[in-house]
Formats: sequence, structure tokens, C-alpha cells
Amino acid sequence: MKSLSDCTVVIVGLGLMGASLAGALRGKCARVVGVARRAEVIETALARGFIDEGTPNLIAGVRDADVVVLSTPVRVIIQQLAEIAPHLRSGCVVMDLGSTKKNIVDAMERLLPEHVQPLGAHPMCGKETSGIEVAEITLYRERTFILTPSPRTTAETLALGVALAEAVGAKPLVLDADRQDYIVGTVSHLPYLLACALVATADATTSKDPAAWKIVAGGFRDTSRVAGSDVTMMLDILMTNQAHVLEAVRVFEEQLRSLTAMIAAGDEDALRARLTHIRNTRKEMFP
Amino acid sequence: MKSLSDCTVVIVGLGLMGASLAGALRGKCARVVGVARRAEVIETALARGFIDEGTPNLIAGVRDADVVVLSTPVRVIIQQLAEIAPHLRSGCVVMDLGSTKKNIVDAMERLLPEHVQPLGAHPMCGKETSGIEVAEITLYRERTFILTPSPRTTAETLALGVALAEAVGAKPLVLDADRQDYIVGTVSHLPYLLACALVATADATTSKDPAAWKIVAGGFRDTSRVAGSDVTMMLDILMTNQAHVLEAVRVFEEQLRSLTAMIAAGDEDALRARLTHIRNTRKEMFP
Repeated sequence: MKSLSDCTVVIVGLGLMGASLAGALRGKCARVVGVARRAEVIETALARGFIDEGTPNLIAGVRDADVVVLSTPVRVIIQQLAEIAPHLRSGCVVMDLGSTKKNIVDAMERLLPEHVQPLGAHPMCGKETSGIEVAEITLYRERTFILTPSPRTTAETLALGVALAEAVGAKPLVLDADRQDYIVGTVSHLPYLLACALVATADATTSKDPAAWKIVAGGFRDTSRVAGSDVTMMLDILMTNQAHVLEAVRVFEEQLRSLTAMIAAGDEDALRARLTHIRNTRKEMFP
Repeated sequence: MKSLSDCTVVIVGLGLMGASLAGALRGKCARVVGVARRAEVIETALARGFIDEGTPNLIAGVRDADVVVLSTPVRVIIQQLAEIAPHLRSGCVVMDLGSTKKNIVDAMERLLPEHVQPLGAHPMCGKETSGIEVAEITLYRERTFILTPSPRTTAETLALGVALAEAVGAKPLVLDADRQDYIVGTVSHLPYLLACALVATADATTSKDPAAWKIVAGGFRDTSRVAGSDVTMMLDILMTNQAHVLEAVRVFEEQLRSLTAMIAAGDEDALRARLTHIRNTRKEMFP
């Protein structure tokens, strides 16, 4: 069985997640190679000790890989799968860190040759900041690291994925790709849209009043934080998880309407019971 | 002109905001008296050095006050205004720390005798935690401290309010009560409702899946944080700011619908332009 410590791991894309993963894996596998288009990103990755080697050439980079981790936006991942497929060596494991998994795992099944093993992954450690400047090797610690095998992923490949997640301090969680997309649609992509619509609301109304800028408080800052997320990344996520995201928004609108109906009706008893239940639910979620 | 340093300041309600204000004012005025129903709260306030004296008796507490600060939920404030009105000495300034101001300032005008001066206030430093246990004398530092005079508030009273805000390290901002309610409806009360509806959405859908609890990530935690706010306080706020809150929700629903329409239509160019504008707007709000 392939051991992580013997592997050459090639990380494609050295942004926040890719560079942090590279740095956290270094020393725990035979070699960490970073692939990035821009020379200064590779220089930074080398200078910060995140990688053993770097190259701007995707094909040359992945050719000797035991494990490839594609850490680019979702639809770039799907393009890169097609590009690297003919150049991977036999037994190579191809992973990715994209937020939506069904499209990617389907693309892996379709595009990767039989002698290459696919394994989707989605570590829950995104931030609203991005880029190698904010990367840190502690990023994955104690975070849930979702692994979504495809029908042809072997137990050995899955075990390697688990070992990789554990090597960076994360907690692996094996899930069906579509089930992960459904859950993440509600717990991650929906909050992004709410944050955006909240900022747009203030922009359309109160922001015209200079006093509003002095009043904007902690509640607004926290609730809108993820509206600062990288747009290209989020656009790919929304476009590859449309159905689940739209369904999550539909349920959210229903819930919001039910709260505002109680406010409009002045139905305080019902509102108090509802808000109390919600408060307790959140406490259960984040004890 | 009355100087803060000569004043006996009586704080009614020793929760997070009241106790923190008391502690921050102590030493900056002649005497700080705390009024709280529960004996153990007064004991804690004394033990933590937040007050010079404490009493559970509202009327006895306010009788010698130069400044009274009502720091209870909005509708309790309105009740207490009626209760204390006949017992205040001439020249006394009555302030409050409630989140909605129009109802309170109207009640002050209506309920306080001519020889008592009214001044609404709303410091922007609420938290989702509450109670004297989490109080700290640094709570007000650098925070915007909204002051909402009523038609009969004198310049001298307003100057005293400004001095009080500055004494606790806050930045005073004088606003019309209705204008503050409109702004706060969008930048504070709306985020609360969104956070609640988000938690309710997860509760209605994904929370049934045990995996969802492991996946709930930073975005969800931040976006839902204020759903942990004190329910009695929030209920009073929503019930005394209904019109502005419902209007803010209406604009929010419009904004959310416009985003989801772009997702449903796959109109990526428009969506990218919109999300980029929103991201930049938020950066402007929180540089």
C-alpha cells in the first residue's frame, strides 16, 4: 500500500488553500512540488518554505506526481483535469480542493484514464481573504476535511486521502459528492449570498446617509463578512451548485417570511418562542 | 453648566451595557449608583468595582440622581420612565441605552415632567452575549455613541450627554431618533433576522444530517452569530421598530431575488459584475 511519506505531492494553484496545504505537508511526504502561473508566487512559496520545488508548467509539474492536488477554482479544476489526464503516471491519485464536488467527481470519472485514481476533497477552511500572502501551515488544523470518492476510487486511495488530511491536522469526513453539495449549499453558499444581499441592501438604502457608516456595527460586520470572498471562486461555486443553492435560498425565504409575518402581525408569543428555539439551536451548533 | 464630574449617575439595569457603562464612568463622576433587581447582580457590580453603591429599589435609587441611565430592554425603559417620573429632582437628565429611539424619545416627551431633561442614547456596542459576567469597562471605547435629543432637550443637556459618551471613550453622534431607527433597522436589526432565518433554514433541512454539524464552517458561524442575541431585548427592538425593519427586509428580499435570478439564468457576466461591486462596497465599509 502506498504510504504518504513516499509520495511526491504536486499542488496546482498556490493560493490560500493550496499554499497552506503545501506548507503543512512538507516534511510529511517525499517531496512537495508547487505549480503556479506567476513566478513571484513560486518565489514566495519557496521563500516561505511551503514547497521543495516550483514550476509554472502544469504538465511538467504533474508528470512525476504520486498525488496531484488541484487547488484552483472549480471550473478551472475541471479544465485542468482534461489537460493533465494524458500525462499522469500509472497509480497517480488526483485530488482537488473545490467547494462543490458532484461536477468535479463526475469530471474525474469521465476524464481520468483507468490507471489514475480520482478522489474529491473539500476542506472546510476557506476564508474571505485569499492568496499565498495569507497562507499558513496551521490552516487545516482541527478542520473538517471532506473526502468524496467516486465509484471507482479504491479503498487504498481513500486511505491515502485520509492520511493526507490527518497529516495536515484535519479531521477527514467521507461523504457522497451530491450529499456534500446539498449540505454545503446551505451551510456555506447560502451564507455567502445572504452576506452579499445584506451589503447590497445597505448600499441601496442607508449607505446614502453618512451617519450609517459610523453606525455600521459588529452585527453587520459579522453577518456580511463572507461577502468579501473571492468572486471568481464564488462564481464557480454558485454555477456548479445551482440547484442546491437555489433550493437553500427558497427555504431561507420561507423562514424569513415566517419571521416577518409574526413581526407584522405583532404575534409576540409566537415570535418569542421561535427566536428562543433558534437561539438554542445555534448554541447547540456552536457550544 | 452642569459638569459630569459633579454628577451622581444612576444606572438602571446592570447587564452587559449598563454594568460596563457604570464601570467606565466610575471615577469620572461624583458617584455611580447601580439599580438591579437581583441582589447577586449588585454584589457582583460592587465586587468588580463597577459601582459605588447599589440598590434593588428603583425609586429610592433615582431620587438623588443628576443623571439617570435606563439600561433595560426598550419596553421596560418605557415602563420605567412612567414609574420614575414623579420622583426625579429638578434638572435631572434622563438617558437610556435602548436600540430603538423614536418610541423612547416620544415616551420621554410625554412622561417626564417639565423640570426633567430627556436624552435618548444608543451606543453601538451590543454583543450576542449578555449579563454582567461579560461586562468590561473597555466596551465603549472607540464605539459610536448615538445621542437622540427630543424637541425639548437643551444644548446643556446634549453637552452633558456628549461628555458622558467621551468619558467612556466613545465617539458621540447626534441623530434624529427616527433617522437612527431607519439606519439601525438596516445595519443591525436586519442582520439579526437574517442570522435567525439562516439558523432556521439549517434546522429545517441539513441539520437532520449528522454530517452537517461537522461541516458547519466559519462562514455560517459568522453569518449566524447575532442569532445568539438576547431574545427579550431583540423582541422589544423588533416590536418598537416594526415599520423600518419590515421595509429593510423588503429591500433585502429584492436584492436576494435579483442575485438568485442571475444564478438561475446562468447570467455569469451580470453576476460577476454584481458580486464584484458588492465585494468592493464591503471593503469600503470595513477598510
